[in-house]
Amino acid sequence: MAVKLGLVGTGTVGGGCIEILKNHKQAFLRHYGIDVELVRVCSRNPEQAIEHGVEDIFTQDYTDIVNDPEIDIVIELIGGTTVARNVVLESLKAGKNVVTANKALMATYGEEVMAAAADAGKEIAFEASVGGGIPIIDPMKHSLIANRIDTVMGIVNGTTNYMLTRMAEDDMPYDEVLAEAQAKGFAEADPTADVDGLDAAAKIAILASIAFNSRVTIDDVYAEGIRNITPLDLEIAKDMGYCVKLLAHAHRTEEGIDVRVHPTMLPLDHQLSTVNGVFNAIFVVGDAVGETMFFGEGAGSGPAASAVMGDVLEVARHIQMGIPPIVGCTCTDAIPIVPMENLKTKYYIRFAVADRSGVLAAMAGVFADHNVSVHSVIQRGKKDAGTVDLTYVTHTAREKSVRAVLADIAKLDDVLREEPSVIRVED
Amino acid sequence: MAVKLGLVGTGTVGGGCIEILKNHKQAFLRHYGIDVELVRVCSRNPEQAIEHGVEDIFTQDYTDIVNDPEIDIVIELIGGTTVARNVVLESLKAGKNVVTANKALMATYGEEVMAAAADAGKEIAFEASVGGGIPIIDPMKHSLIANRIDTVMGIVNGTTNYMLTRMAEDDMPYDEVLAEAQAKGFAEADPTADVDGLDAAAKIAILASIAFNSRVTIDDVYAEGIRNITPLDLEIAKDMGYCVKLLAHAHRTEEGIDVRVHPTMLPLDHQLSTVNGVFNAIFVVGDAVGETMFFGEGAGSGPAASAVMGDVLEVARHIQMGIPPIVGCTCTDAIPIVPMENLKTKYYIRFAVADRSGVLAAMAGVFADHNVSVHSVIQRGKKDAGTVDLTYVTHTAREKSVRAVLADIAKLDDVLREEPSVIRVED
Repeated sequence: MAVKLGLVGTGTVGGGCIEILKNHKQAFLRHYGIDVELVRVCSRNPEQAIEHGVEDIFTQDYTDIVNDPEIDIVIELIGGTTVARNVVLESLKAGKNVVTANKALMATYGEEVMAAAADAGKEIAFEASVGGGIPIIDPMKHSLIANRIDTVMGIVNGTTNYMLTRMAEDDMPYDEVLAEAQAKGFAEADPTADVDGLDAAAKIAILASIAFNSRVTIDDVYAEGIRNITPLDLEIAKDMGYCVKLLAHAHRTEEGIDVRVHPTMLPLDHQLSTVNGVFNAIFVVGDAVGETMFFGEGAGSGPAASAVMGDVLEVARHIQMGIPPIVGCTCTDAIPIVPMENLKTKYYIRFAVADRSGVLAAMAGVFADHNVSVHSVIQRGKKDAGTVDLTYVTHTAREKSVRAVLADIAKLDDVLREEPSVIRVED
Repeated sequence: MAVKLGLVGTGTVGGGCIEILKNHKQAFLRHYGIDVELVRVCSRNPEQAIEHGVEDIFTQDYTDIVNDPEIDIVIELIGGTTVARNVVLESLKAGKNVVTANKALMATYGEEVMAAAADAGKEIAFEASVGGGIPIIDPMKHSLIANRIDTVMGIVNGTTNYMLTRMAEDDMPYDEVLAEAQAKGFAEADPTADVDGLDAAAKIAILASIAFNSRVTIDDVYAEGIRNITPLDLEIAKDMGYCVKLLAHAHRTEEGIDVRVHPTMLPLDHQLSTVNGVFNAIFVVGDAVGETMFFGEGAGSGPAASAVMGDVLEVARHIQMGIPPIVGCTCTDAIPIVPMENLKTKYYIRFAVADRSGVLAAMAGVFADHNVSVHSVIQRGKKDAGTVDLTYVTHTAREKSVRAVLADIAKLDDVLREEPSVIRVED
């Protein structure tokens, strides 16, 4: 007897799932003996149901799915942390397995959702919440568990990666690139979640929790976006042998979990540096496996639906075999989060300053006062007469020391011509 | 009660597994509730057992492991298709689960081994047989199954990738690079399996079988190695915007499965083109997921042991939960293999020919005779007086037509000065 599916949400990803089921239902049965049937679809939007030909099983009330005793797996694809949270928790409570693509939910209420699944003895799967179609959560929960994972670094937001790629390759300013991305449908009308790094923060919280066996929520993640990145900084970076990516970081350190999202200068020969446009990639370093990377399309109907349906088929397989959930919550440890001010890394800092004698010496004094050791400094003239660009690259320093340097330099009389550019450097 | 492991083979990978168990046994229990214990180790080499501190559980007779009723999982790491085949088949018959890294065995006797596992109701896992530590078999058997996979292309042999990288970057000839690779331990004293593409052929047979749900054996795979690649061809390729990789191909075509290993010209902006040195990567294209790539270290103690132990822990988890094998053989279809002579692709062909009038016209005539359409031809002088290099790139053509062109050009009176270089081109 077929495993019965209820789908909540018929947007881009939901539509992709319906298409996959239409095209491959017979293949799933033939190749894997997995028999799934979509029996109910919920959406606020009846037109989407008609478009996908599911009007006969359509409802606008998600409780029709939660309360349907026939349904084995609920697929939650509406996103957000309000109604979606209810759908997921109520479904689990009603004894259904849940597959979701909801990064905000898992990064915010992950512990609650995992506990609800455990209480119900049901599965919760969320491969599509990170990296679109890229298999990353499943490999980290299965293939890579013989490792102590030390680093997870990812380009996990396609919108900002597209924007940074365009800015670097075509010397376009931020505003112009954002408008273009919005016109192409790569960025939303309100781009905040993408450009301010919040989307990436949710994703790295999920990956860090799995990698380090310790719960990391979105609130633990320092997030800084790309609004202040200029084509000039990208050009200077390139001259120095680097590119700039909005990178989500999670590192195991002696002080705890270092987890953050910000523009990062990466050496051009780093494997992540070749990941351009809307593609995503997640770089994972383990003590046995060494460096690995998982690359693919991070968004869009097909890729996200591939991940959702991969989860659905796996859960269906278990249901057919009468198998209980295999992997539940793996957050068995409670490792502290390193406060951002304790971060130790290298910094690229570009100041536009008044072209006056003594400025360089005064600034050097400030760096020395805070024990921030400078690796290199390059001075170049600007178009505006009377202004020069000073680009510093530091040795490894503490975030709080660098912030103190920036604060003190801001106080230097009438020196700064604009806000400095600060980009952390990964070697 | 702990799941009991028996290890056969204490070389590089076996040693890596012993180290992982030493370092992480407690973590496996704490994070995942998986309790494993190595109870018996077989090797021809007592010194290796002493080196890894397992002399108290050491034997030189593998039947001590096969016949030990206490052992739940046999880890076969001796390689080859003779004794290893006996170890695997006898272990399954004795009711044990098997984890192996043996590509030759799986690519040659995969059907027999899968059937033996099914008969026994036991698991056979072989993630480490392809791509070292890179999770690829597990993602293809789980995360990606909602897709119809159309292409799997991989750099799956680190030795030849290292050699080609050195040849391209440092303009070194084949023999010199091979000697260096041997000195560094990247190539074996008898390099045949690597440089002739046989190792890669076994790996792509395994991946193709999974990707297309149809059995492909090593004998189905056309294999051509890198012995004839010259630094000059790598240089010309680069000028044309390509690199040369020993690529393992598996494509779903209308005529059947196109599966082969040979040096391939790849555009420099292809994601696989950035994979250098001893790294491996597998590029997978699915109808929903689009382009994905899995990157990592393809060989060595840690990476391979990461994959082996990942399999071991997964099987142990199932044993502890009383779960039967979840995925067995998925070769439900019988898709024909496209004969190599029917291959349709583009070709790079470089001839060194006598610098005589009429040669270009005669050669053009031969191409035309066999309906091989030429995209570009570049002539350049050589150091040897009286010889010119003619580099052709064809449009898409049939392999058999190109072979006919080569045969006819070989017959042109006294024209060829050396064997032509032929490299297939992937766009």
